[in-house]
Amino acid sequence: MEMKEISLKFNRPSWLKPCFLLLLCCIQSACANTQSLSENGVSSGDIESVSLVQKKSFTTKNFQTFGGKNIENVTVGWESYGSLNAKKDNVILITHFFTGNSHAAGKYNNSDSAAGYWDAIIGPGKAIDTNRFYVISVDSLANLGVHNPNVITTGPASINPKTGQPYGLDFPVVTIRDFVNVQKQLLMSLGISKLYAVVGPSMGSMQALDWAVAYPNWVERMVSVIGSGQADAWTSAKLEHWATPIKLDKNWQQGNYYSSQAPVDGLVASLMLITQDALYPDFFNQVGKEINFSALESAALDDIRQSPSIVNWLRARALTRAESMDANHLLYLVRACQLYVAGHQGDLNNALKKVQAKTLLLPAQTDLLLMPYNLQSTQQMLLDNGKDSQLSILPGTLGHLEGVVGISKHASLIQSFLNK
Amino acid sequence: MEMKEISLKFNRPSWLKPCFLLLLCCIQSACANTQSLSENGVSSGDIESVSLVQKKSFTTKNFQTFGGKNIENVTVGWESYGSLNAKKDNVILITHFFTGNSHAAGKYNNSDSAAGYWDAIIGPGKAIDTNRFYVISVDSLANLGVHNPNVITTGPASINPKTGQPYGLDFPVVTIRDFVNVQKQLLMSLGISKLYAVVGPSMGSMQALDWAVAYPNWVERMVSVIGSGQADAWTSAKLEHWATPIKLDKNWQQGNYYSSQAPVDGLVASLMLITQDALYPDFFNQVGKEINFSALESAALDDIRQSPSIVNWLRARALTRAESMDANHLLYLVRACQLYVAGHQGDLNNALKKVQAKTLLLPAQTDLLLMPYNLQSTQQMLLDNGKDSQLSILPGTLGHLEGVVGISKHASLIQSFLNK
Repeated sequence: MEMKEISLKFNRPSWLKPCFLLLLCCIQSACANTQSLSENGVSSGDIESVSLVQKKSFTTKNFQTFGGKNIENVTVGWESYGSLNAKKDNVILITHFFTGNSHAAGKYNNSDSAAGYWDAIIGPGKAIDTNRFYVISVDSLANLGVHNPNVITTGPASINPKTGQPYGLDFPVVTIRDFVNVQKQLLMSLGISKLYAVVGPSMGSMQALDWAVAYPNWVERMVSVIGSGQADAWTSAKLEHWATPIKLDKNWQQGNYYSSQAPVDGLVASLMLITQDALYPDFFNQVGKEINFSALESAALDDIRQSPSIVNWLRARALTRAESMDANHLLYLVRACQLYVAGHQGDLNNALKKVQAKTLLLPAQTDLLLMPYNLQSTQQMLLDNGKDSQLSILPGTLGHLEGVVGISKHASLIQSFLNK
Repeated sequence: MEMKEISLKFNRPSWLKPCFLLLLCCIQSACANTQSLSENGVSSGDIESVSLVQKKSFTTKNFQTFGGKNIENVTVGWESYGSLNAKKDNVILITHFFTGNSHAAGKYNNSDSAAGYWDAIIGPGKAIDTNRFYVISVDSLANLGVHNPNVITTGPASINPKTGQPYGLDFPVVTIRDFVNVQKQLLMSLGISKLYAVVGPSMGSMQALDWAVAYPNWVERMVSVIGSGQADAWTSAKLEHWATPIKLDKNWQQGNYYSSQAPVDGLVASLMLITQDALYPDFFNQVGKEINFSALESAALDDIRQSPSIVNWLRARALTRAESMDANHLLYLVRACQLYVAGHQGDLNNALKKVQAKTLLLPAQTDLLLMPYNLQSTQQMLLDNGKDSQLSILPGTLGHLEGVVGISKHASLIQSFLNK
């Protein structure tokens, strides 16, 4: 649940602090961060990125959804970093966030401006060490970035083989469990039947914990970053506001827009809200300084049709991001997150009894989207059920994004846990 | 900035805690709270509500807006509680919040289900003691509740005398300063030239602090509850999300909907977001328990067009509230708040040098809309400028609404300050 790309096109004043520039850079580059982990005392080893990455494709026929519907053809993209060992017991699955995809580390080409979103912690000698682990990541069903050439997904924008037209809202509701089940089929096709760890941020953390409950024999370690055990009433309602602008857009037409104008205004409005929900005031107010935002701007005072400069800034970034995204896909991801309760069985506490994995829970102190109480109450249930569970609250002022763009600062927590 | 009415129509299970019922009751009744202040040790005097209240009307011609435009006729409603003394020096002005109006205390009829929103602290023997003070409150320009028979306001839904049609977006942008200036004209028409205090929550706090800067000779005491010194970049962007659903509604038609279908869907979506922004997870999750919300509901799993029960609950409440409101008015209030910097001169710190009033700043600990940092930084500027300023963070889990529906708990702070 957060933003992927923010490009900055205005002139930066000379007083701008280097650390803020670094942060903007991180967000701009889809969260790539090549900062040496040795700065954080994590490792003094060989710090570099993974080799050039290739997107691969996996297809499964007649996929049964958790809701009991059939999808004739499911095809998703996936990536891997490092090598699978002979025993096939060195696999770490990385599950991605709401606006993300399986590009977790490395670059496709040396000229790429950005590496994968968790490149700061995935690579040779890094916290998730690809000299040791075979790291694998899979595009979700109904992936938001369906028009990104490096995303492969099946969702409402895909062709319904029954009609030869895009599914639209005829695509069945999919759940976090369905993302997990697609991943499991891919892993099984590779002869894998055990995960050294499953690790993910935000919507990825939902998949990670659902894995640990649904397939406890598979999962040895689980790391939930900026996550939750379930969508509580607050979160379910909060997610709905992300769907609303799309449904209000006159071009949405109940999801049947594939042969006409797409609901871009609604999608952009949704992305603007998602971006803000994933952040914290400090970031916006620093951007505000940079673009000389002030409350009493003459354009906004003179004309109700004009917007404050910070709104224009936010809209411009959302417009760029919207180009690779599909509005219906966003609705389906919202629904998957709304339906989420680890185990997908109704009662979280009961479900958590099944967990066999060691678990590490990493909420972020300033997260306004999935506040720390979510993982704190989940940990309490795990501990009450006698499970091995650690929790650390990530400090920092990046809000929810502390678990994505800010992850390098917290690499040592993950590295230590993986050595347990 | 918060909600006015939530009606509860579902059956309440027997296990429901009385304190939660009380809270729902408070919100349901437009924040009326007849809880005796003596429970909080504030007063042992005569605790009752003000006498029956009458809405009065004030008109001023050729009103010049802060932005330099002319409004030929401005008419606003106002209420008063208590009696103006001979010296006219016992006046306390109450300035209202975003979705509110001048009905701050008392009832119009004994049969009213609810008293004014701050009835818990305004009345004979209460924190703002109407045995002593003449308390006055005024409907804002572009008041949201324009179709509420107890609201009188001038805004985009009013008739433009030049055309004989509603203004729509031809209504000039109005600011917090304009609300203040209308109030000042009303006070002057009553022969008043000094305020013992100006006190307001949220958007009301903006008016209160702007009063203290703009007309320092008038204001002896200023209380800002759940407020800020200015709209920072974060707040400006956050407010924009409230406007967006209205602008996306196909019925909005650039504000020209008065002779056709109003943009009700957009207005409802906006109110749903405002309600959540003004609260905190605890409230939603308690409602969730009451309506048996669970993440994995079969309706939402079976059909993407269905909504989770908590969303239906939120939507139903917003629909009821929307009946008395106008969508364009909401856009104008958003803009007034976006343009807000106390003093309306650009630099807050400089503006605050003009303050002569003693000031009390009351941010709420769990406020997610105007977080405590807003008033904390404002207080720092006041103190740096040698001003008399107190700040207390209101405890409680009601979020922003701690300053409205939760106000009775904090009455003693206000009462003590008014005795300074």
